Amino acid sequence: MTLLVVGSVAYDSVQTPQGAREDALGGSATYFSIASSYFSPVSLVAIVGEDFQPEHIALLEKHDVDVSGLERVDGDTFRWSGVYSTEDVNQRETLDTQLNVFADFKPNLSEQHRNADFLFLANIDPELQLEVLGQMNQRPKLVALDSMNFWIDGKKNELDKIVEAVDMVFMDEGEARTYANEPNLRRAAARIHEVGPSTVIIKRGEHGVLISNEGNLFSAPAFPLDRVVDPTGAGDTFAGGFVGLISATGDLSEAGIRRAAVLGSVMGSFTVEDFSADRLATLTHEQVVERFSEFERLTQFTGLDKSNSLPWRA
Amino acid sequence: MTLLVVGSVAYDSVQTPQGAREDALGGSATYFSIASSYFSPVSLVAIVGEDFQPEHIALLEKHDVDVSGLERVDGDTFRWSGVYSTEDVNQRETLDTQLNVFADFKPNLSEQHRNADFLFLANIDPELQLEVLGQMNQRPKLVALDSMNFWIDGKKNELDKIVEAVDMVFMDEGEARTYANEPNLRRAAARIHEVGPSTVIIKRGEHGVLISNEGNLFSAPAFPLDRVVDPTGAGDTFAGGFVGLISATGDLSEAGIRRAAVLGSVMGSFTVEDFSADRLATLTHEQVVERFSEFERLTQFTGLDKSNSLPWRA
Repeated sequence: MTLLVVGSVAYDSVQTPQGAREDALGGSATYFSIASSYFSPVSLVAIVGEDFQPEHIALLEKHDVDVSGLERVDGDTFRWSGVYSTEDVNQRETLDTQLNVFADFKPNLSEQHRNADFLFLANIDPELQLEVLGQMNQRPKLVALDSMNFWIDGKKNELDKIVEAVDMVFMDEGEARTYANEPNLRRAAARIHEVGPSTVIIKRGEHGVLISNEGNLFSAPAFPLDRVVDPTGAGDTFAGGFVGLISATGDLSEAGIRRAAVLGSVMGSFTVEDFSADRLATLTHEQVVERFSEFERLTQFTGLDKSNSLPWRA
Repeated sequence: MTLLVVGSVAYDSVQTPQGAREDALGGSATYFSIASSYFSPVSLVAIVGEDFQPEHIALLEKHDVDVSGLERVDGDTFRWSGVYSTEDVNQRETLDTQLNVFADFKPNLSEQHRNADFLFLANIDPELQLEVLGQMNQRPKLVALDSMNFWIDGKKNELDKIVEAVDMVFMDEGEARTYANEPNLRRAAARIHEVGPSTVIIKRGEHGVLISNEGNLFSAPAFPLDRVVDPTGAGDTFAGGFVGLISATGDLSEAGIRRAAVLGSVMGSFTVEDFSADRLATLTHEQVVERFSEFERLTQFTGLDKSNSLPWRA
């Protein structure tokens, strides 16, 4: 089935304990579309400036990402720069954000894109997210969104409207707590369910993911790496692997969602192994299958058998 | 088999977002011994003052904890007080620490205790931990220890000596990073292995646990609760459930360690549901089995089958 992502394509300049990179390909729609492209046909809708490099179009096309919705206009591409902490690579500080052409992003979907089966609304202005959903010819089988504190703090009412309209939300721990106004994550997920989505996906970075799917809780760790080069894009890659698998299989059962979450974690673990999408863009089937199997070994334990064979002295 | 714990018995005064409690029963050896008592015979070696309440002796005895090693001397029992953050209940600030009689704790094991099969050295001065190990008549089947930043910062050389001598260490994330002088947890675990222990258990609080057992990694989340009343003692309860099960089964295989870790997490999840050991001390077999099963449901996912059935477009 077809998957559409609407989000940002950017150039990122990052400093991490492992080095630095200037004007590297980034953006939520970039990571999402490359990650999902391994599993599902995917179309990207985003905006870039005249400085956007042909090699980066070529990279997306190499992954069979449909870039017909990648608008190119006068001006510069969205730029973000940040520095990651030496002690805790999950902590980062934004040095500079230049919206550039992204400030005037007004997605206008093509007829083909309006028929997508699955829709991922990456982290953009919630008014635009609602506007995009309104352009669809029919309600997609699944609409998922990501957001961030900037919108939670600044456009809560608009965000409420789109959250109410989607099936699945991706938020990080802090965002979920702030959005739900509730420090306890299980309760925060319950409150987000009340707004509308049947699936609440709470991203915990190096601590994994907590999912509440119609109240069923699933928790998975992050894949522990001995070297994290650049965490940028891990969350969007996670979402891309997740929704990409669901788009490929159409499996929205509890088991399907759990498998998608594990695959998303696996994909995210590759992204952070190098700067930009360098590692993500060079994956093989064998590498992904191997890490998925490692993830199984990482988390497996023997349950209690039917006789409840737990030693007990009482 | 028999299990010996040497650590603290204390009175804690805590403030949490859910309330406050003055002079509640606490201490590492208290939580550890009650948790492990459900699974294994356990003996406690600790020191208290003349203010220690008979009802608290009775509570330990009710759980069949051998308190013959609980020394009672003139003076006051160890007191700790702290306040937990409203936004993040895992963050706490110590308001006051009064070592009292604990300052002069010099464990002198009885002949029976010197023959214990399993030994847990709770968080006390590493010189005392080494001294206790030296008193054993023969090397126990398993020696495990817990420590904290106070000793890592202040008695690193002494701590190295006892870490070198044990089989298993319990540290929290920050302690493991500090002790190994390595921010990456997987590498930190590898460095701790180099010092000696074959099993490194990194406690991550609400984020679960990461275990490196002879290099095999196991990661489990914490059980997500919708109400955390008081996190005090969760780590010691985790260790008590963990080592208690191993003492009961003697199973030090990879599978045995993983099951022990899950049971430890289950036990810890009960402790935080109420102040002090109130919830921990009233558990039934049925409740523990039920939550273990919930933990299985929380973490299970379907692996790739033998044909590596991952959709792949390449």
